Amino acid sequence: MNNLQEVCQRAKDASYKLALLGNEDKNKMLLAIAEKIENSKEIIKKENAIDIANAQGVLSNAMIDRLTMTDARINLMAEGVRQVASLEDPVGKVVNTWTTPNGLEFKKVRAPLGVIAVIYESRPNVTIDVASLCIKSGNCVILKGGKEAINSNRALFNIIQKALEENGYDKDIVGFVDDVSRETTYELLQQSKYIDVIIPRGSENLKKFILTNSQIPVIASSGGNCHVYVEKTADLKMAEDIVYNAKMQRPSTCNACEQLLVDKDIAEEFLPKMIARLQENNCKVLGCENTRKIVPSVIAATEEDYKTEKNDYILTIYVVNDYKEAIDRINANSTKHSEAIISNNQSIIDTFNKMVDSGCVYTNTSTRFTDGFEFGFGAEIGISTQKLHARGPLGLEQLTSEKYLVKGQGQVRK
Amino acid sequence: MNNLQEVCQRAKDASYKLALLGNEDKNKMLLAIAEKIENSKEIIKKENAIDIANAQGVLSNAMIDRLTMTDARINLMAEGVRQVASLEDPVGKVVNTWTTPNGLEFKKVRAPLGVIAVIYESRPNVTIDVASLCIKSGNCVILKGGKEAINSNRALFNIIQKALEENGYDKDIVGFVDDVSRETTYELLQQSKYIDVIIPRGSENLKKFILTNSQIPVIASSGGNCHVYVEKTADLKMAEDIVYNAKMQRPSTCNACEQLLVDKDIAEEFLPKMIARLQENNCKVLGCENTRKIVPSVIAATEEDYKTEKNDYILTIYVVNDYKEAIDRINANSTKHSEAIISNNQSIIDTFNKMVDSGCVYTNTSTRFTDGFEFGFGAEIGISTQKLHARGPLGLEQLTSEKYLVKGQGQVRK
Repeated sequence: MNNLQEVCQRAKDASYKLALLGNEDKNKMLLAIAEKIENSKEIIKKENAIDIANAQGVLSNAMIDRLTMTDARINLMAEGVRQVASLEDPVGKVVNTWTTPNGLEFKKVRAPLGVIAVIYESRPNVTIDVASLCIKSGNCVILKGGKEAINSNRALFNIIQKALEENGYDKDIVGFVDDVSRETTYELLQQSKYIDVIIPRGSENLKKFILTNSQIPVIASSGGNCHVYVEKTADLKMAEDIVYNAKMQRPSTCNACEQLLVDKDIAEEFLPKMIARLQENNCKVLGCENTRKIVPSVIAATEEDYKTEKNDYILTIYVVNDYKEAIDRINANSTKHSEAIISNNQSIIDTFNKMVDSGCVYTNTSTRFTDGFEFGFGAEIGISTQKLHARGPLGLEQLTSEKYLVKGQGQVRK
Repeated sequence: MNNLQEVCQRAKDASYKLALLGNEDKNKMLLAIAEKIENSKEIIKKENAIDIANAQGVLSNAMIDRLTMTDARINLMAEGVRQVASLEDPVGKVVNTWTTPNGLEFKKVRAPLGVIAVIYESRPNVTIDVASLCIKSGNCVILKGGKEAINSNRALFNIIQKALEENGYDKDIVGFVDDVSRETTYELLQQSKYIDVIIPRGSENLKKFILTNSQIPVIASSGGNCHVYVEKTADLKMAEDIVYNAKMQRPSTCNACEQLLVDKDIAEEFLPKMIARLQENNCKVLGCENTRKIVPSVIAATEEDYKTEKNDYILTIYVVNDYKEAIDRINANSTKHSEAIISNNQSIIDTFNKMVDSGCVYTNTSTRFTDGFEFGFGAEIGISTQKLHARGPLGLEQLTSEKYLVKGQGQVRK
């Protein structure tokens, strides 16, 4: 058994004991971690400085900024852990109970997943965010970060283990893979004996590698090629404000609008004002033939543009004949993340809700709300765009599984 | 685009329209299928006869019997479809609703998974069972059966499509892969553009091939190496009856007991009677050193025996020091399917429920109850032993996903 397997097995062993602990113990762990983070600023900054020095001339200034730990950011990290502690404990929650005619009492309850391996890149605060969400949801976690932040991540991991140990808890609740190679990631993906779920957080490239090579179930997210559809009965002023918000408020996020669909009956009224507002605020506007007939300054969109998440101040527009064409285009091009309809026709809204095959479907509001805090879940570990297990923001509840507890009085099967 | 991709794409297109249909339409489809099955006995038996002829000298008599369609079995198949129609429709069910302070109204609802591909072996009735469960849960399905039943499966598939078409429904709601090669299974597993979920039903060999090669999420089940643990406070007569039922009532099933754990304090009282009753009824009993000290006729068990599902009249016994050892052994050796504790100590029962990492955990009753009908779910498509998405019997609800519908009045993100 090599070192990696040892880390995994220790986490597995710890997971059964962690499943016994209640909310009070888990909160004690989290508050101890928060306190130790605040008291370890010097060591964190010292290790972080090594990562930053290594990054000079390698990473962009923006990336180096994301990597940098300041006193303020360290305090924010600790605050985040306290917030997770304040959330409701999902474990043990009774989802459903029923009794069958033979007197068996069934109870479906939330239970931890067991051991989660999170494979991530870049920002060191992910180490703390992920560890705290896993602990609160009763899961052991194995952390494998990227090479850019290895020294910062190791320092944070050591703080977590010390905080656990000093308070009498099993330090192996949190494990760390101190090797940043792709080969080790591959090996980690084979440890189905010890790891229950893999969660990737990082580039599309990393996710693809994980999905292709994992022997363990993966909770994956793709990016968001999110659509806003302005149906002909929409309040056009509301539609304009929502599209503007969905596109411009923070275009780098996965819930930002990339695609605007507009019914042909209202295109001439709606598009000139909408496009002018976007262009005046330095948003590049691409569009179909019909869009360009109405607003000639719009750049011709390619087929690829309709399928691409640009994460930038760029919006692609397509004029549709009706809601049916809008739904077909969304299902053909979306990444199943978040789509919105702006409309006052309830029957069309109902059809849109049923037929649009995305995790989050909005009516008369912005796709930007797909976010754990905005949903009221608190911190999230990502946004799922797959259909099994959980869709949308992955909060604490989504980090649990369900199990059936069945109580009898000696019943046997006939 | 080849024929397989065409089948998959047509199912995908049909799936969006199927998502619009309510319970009434789905039941109409199912009742039409049931009727057509009953009216097609001759053609089913004719095609089935080809499979049976091909199986002579190739398959065992037991296997040929499983393959054979009689009038009675055809009627049962139709009856099964009507039972599925009578179950509650899971689609559209509201799981949860809440409103956030900014006035957004959240609704979490059950939605179909989309397109499910079911890859199965042997018995042709699986074609009908699976198709009816998928239709009722609003999913399109692509069926790929084994070569032994290809003619029967094709006949049943044609009956389904005709029943759909004659009643004005899209026949592509159910697709069929009319090619039994492993290469085609491999190709099917790559169609992530069209297929949302893969469900394997068949040998461990088939499941392993699917888990290794699928680019699509899989709902998998392993077999059941199920444990019954007799804790020292147990009612020993109750324990004896439960163990006897769990082992002997139908040992070929995945929920039958394979492993008996007994507290050392009660082993001398409990084991002689238990073992005598099993042996008198032709059950082979294997056991640890301590078991054999108490009952010398017991055969020595190997380490492998404790980890193996035998699906036969064979029980393996191990004497444990206490509940902690019992739980550790279960978590080390079980397949996470179904485990039972027989006890009158509530604190130990609670610990067992929390720590035993299986989908179904029983107190004072038999593991044989892990079954869709016994749970009150009605027909099931399998028993899941993984932790993501669903554990235990996979009924209609487990064939759906959840999505969030969010209603606003023009809210934008600040």
